[in-house]
Amino acid sequence: MKANIFVTLKKEVLDPQGDAVRRSLTSLGFEEVKSARVGKLIELELDGNDTAAAESHIQSMCEKLLANPVIEDFHYEIVD
Amino acid sequence: MKANIFVTLKKEVLDPQGDAVRRSLTSLGFEEVKSARVGKLIELELDGNDTAAAESHIQSMCEKLLANPVIEDFHYEIVD
Repeated sequence: MKANIFVTLKKEVLDPQGDAVRRSLTSLGFEEVKSARVGKLIELELDGNDTAAAESHIQSMCEKLLANPVIEDFHYEIVD
Repeated sequence: MKANIFVTLKKEVLDPQGDAVRRSLTSLGFEEVKSARVGKLIELELDGNDTAAAESHIQSMCEKLLANPVIEDFHYEIVD
């Protein structure tokens, strides 16, 4: 089973890396870019076929290790 | 218009950060995790409504700045 986990900064948290990306894109001529935010994509390969158990474990992995709940949000999808 | 860009290391490229995540998850008791890979998620907010033009610009942004084509793959989705 594969899972993709998306970890993003909460909206109210400043994202200097995203701002740098936006400025660089603007200076390359992509002036339509109004904002950029940079987050993490974590791809996991998991043993087992129990989707419900996997979802509950992934939730727990995010809370314990993969995301910082003070400044980050996360969501995930089970791919297959 | 919003776009999500996913930048991941090519399969043949070693991912020490992903390995560290896998080991940490294993030591937390998540022994079903066979592998972990860490990539980037870049969320862009774009002016304009022309989806075809946006896609072509995003392709170009990735090639010029957001991804390193030697070691990284990318894909993207236009959200709305």
